Amino acid sequence: MTFRQSTRLADGRELLYYDEQPGVDRTAADRRDLPATATSSQIRWDPLFRDWSVIAGHRQTRTYRPPTSDCPLDPSRDGRLTEIPASDYDVVVFENRFPSLTTQASDELATDEFPFHSAPGIGRCEVVCFTSDHDTSFAQLPPSRARTVIDALADRTIELQRIDGVEYVFCFENRGEEIGVTLTHPHGQIYAYPFVPSRFERAGAVARSYHDETESCLQCAVVAAERKASIRVVAESDLWTAHVPFAARWPYEVRLVPQRHVPDLPSLTSDERDDLARIYLDVLQRFDRLFGGRTPYIAGWHQAPARRDRDVWHLAAEVFTIRRAPGKLKYLAGSESGAGVWINDVTPEVAAARLRGET
Amino acid sequence: MTFRQSTRLADGRELLYYDEQPGVDRTAADRRDLPATATSSQIRWDPLFRDWSVIAGHRQTRTYRPPTSDCPLDPSRDGRLTEIPASDYDVVVFENRFPSLTTQASDELATDEFPFHSAPGIGRCEVVCFTSDHDTSFAQLPPSRARTVIDALADRTIELQRIDGVEYVFCFENRGEEIGVTLTHPHGQIYAYPFVPSRFERAGAVARSYHDETESCLQCAVVAAERKASIRVVAESDLWTAHVPFAARWPYEVRLVPQRHVPDLPSLTSDERDDLARIYLDVLQRFDRLFGGRTPYIAGWHQAPARRDRDVWHLAAEVFTIRRAPGKLKYLAGSESGAGVWINDVTPEVAAARLRGET
Repeated sequence: MTFRQSTRLADGRELLYYDEQPGVDRTAADRRDLPATATSSQIRWDPLFRDWSVIAGHRQTRTYRPPTSDCPLDPSRDGRLTEIPASDYDVVVFENRFPSLTTQASDELATDEFPFHSAPGIGRCEVVCFTSDHDTSFAQLPPSRARTVIDALADRTIELQRIDGVEYVFCFENRGEEIGVTLTHPHGQIYAYPFVPSRFERAGAVARSYHDETESCLQCAVVAAERKASIRVVAESDLWTAHVPFAARWPYEVRLVPQRHVPDLPSLTSDERDDLARIYLDVLQRFDRLFGGRTPYIAGWHQAPARRDRDVWHLAAEVFTIRRAPGKLKYLAGSESGAGVWINDVTPEVAAARLRGET
Repeated sequence: MTFRQSTRLADGRELLYYDEQPGVDRTAADRRDLPATATSSQIRWDPLFRDWSVIAGHRQTRTYRPPTSDCPLDPSRDGRLTEIPASDYDVVVFENRFPSLTTQASDELATDEFPFHSAPGIGRCEVVCFTSDHDTSFAQLPPSRARTVIDALADRTIELQRIDGVEYVFCFENRGEEIGVTLTHPHGQIYAYPFVPSRFERAGAVARSYHDETESCLQCAVVAAERKASIRVVAESDLWTAHVPFAARWPYEVRLVPQRHVPDLPSLTSDERDDLARIYLDVLQRFDRLFGGRTPYIAGWHQAPARRDRDVWHLAAEVFTIRRAPGKLKYLAGSESGAGVWINDVTPEVAAARLRGET
């Protein structure tokens, strides 16, 4: 069971505690003198590629790699005031102080004069702290805590999907300085976008068209074929499959897919969540064992859009590292960033074997 | 005028000299004992996102940041044998020794059993050396040399488009260790892909649909509107416009577009090429002045696909840096790499003003 309590930070931002025990006192007030931050987020339309960009010109001054002693994600203790007023917590979620998207986005700057089309950057950016322990990592959490994180993400997904104008809720974790993470405290993020990101819009259209043709689910077919082929499977259970995709873009990339056809995290049963906690930790630990030490990674949940393609969408998590060999990173250069074509130097079958610990 | 001579390297790869003067002796033979390299490139289809990945499992052993004294892109001099047999050169193009795509790709590994579809990695990967001077950069070349590079790219585009199975020719330059460039000698690359990269497939479909609706070109309309608005224009001439896109994805990003509706580099007139050399150097110099010193950047040519959408396509170059502020890089993390949504912290109008030298 997960027990939720909410409060407001000194500048009015919402903060939610997700506790594993009932009745814990989380009433501590934010005693900082915190000015409200101004945001000027916009989304802008690129007519040549039919794609949205988020322009967040106010974010250049955001916190950049504070020393450990100043970590804003620690609980408030020993006279040091942080983003979290309580002196301890299990899992906590709060609105980012420097959000790329906000429900307060002003429409002053919006234009709609062809070919220039922009709109307010409506949405939410939330920070999810996985533990009050600054020095650990998601992979090292006990399954019970991973389960609490999953419950928190599911709860946030439901609430954020309800916000007027929000079209997609993306839960993700960036881990490692190599990918620009500025805070080392174990945490993830949630972006509630005012549009369906083009990558997921495409996946939704593909799922829809496959469903129209076959009256079945493409992701169900792919995961069944991967289980049968088994060569790219990294871990599996009755409820979940973790496999390297046949056409993986990244050197080490895993898709984690529920056996049951569900659109998003809130749709998972309690048993599915418990098993997910176990297999997700197993996958993250395999990433850390790959190169010995903390592997930098990006993990993201491909949930159904908030308002469409929900019947044909099949939930999946994507976890990948930008490390291609010890001491070597996979950079996104001309082919990837310019043309959108990923060149992968590690064959998916070799990646899967290494993640299984076979080589 | 550009004068072309060709030769073969010791392992059979093609090498072409593009000289600014006629009659220069480039007959020097490659005297190295070079074993032929084996390649096992594949393209693999991701059915969920309808996108190709290139899987090049043989490339992990490629040259990684050799010391300057071992630069393989220097001419062969003073007893040191490099990739270029001649003792000097203006511009030289040769097949990459560790190609991601090759005309020799074997179809042994190809499969077509739903949902697994792969094909040989047919294509070419070429290296373009801009100058024999190891220590300079493209931005510092004289306009005459920039023109020779443009002529070489145009010539290569024609030849590579003719290769059976090649669908798209992408000319690009990666500059800077920050984006993983392993050789500092000024050089670019050309990838001839066996498919139209999804980013350009989308742009082609958009151009086609706009053309069908309006009987005119979308890129022509965008560039006319940018010239009229002028706020995002960085440099312009009668023949070319350099501007920051309204919905720029990167902190500092410039599109360089010819006024005339042409599909690719080979279609440019001599006057257009001369003016391009001038304005392209101007843009690159502005990037270097931004942060003082050599700004890391990726530059790529958006040419028409080899075999379709050529009538509706309008050539453009895209130049962007991953630097967002002095000492700070723009990392592609969860939103960008996971969801495909770029968050840009520098508003395009501010970026353009800085590139114009106004702030």
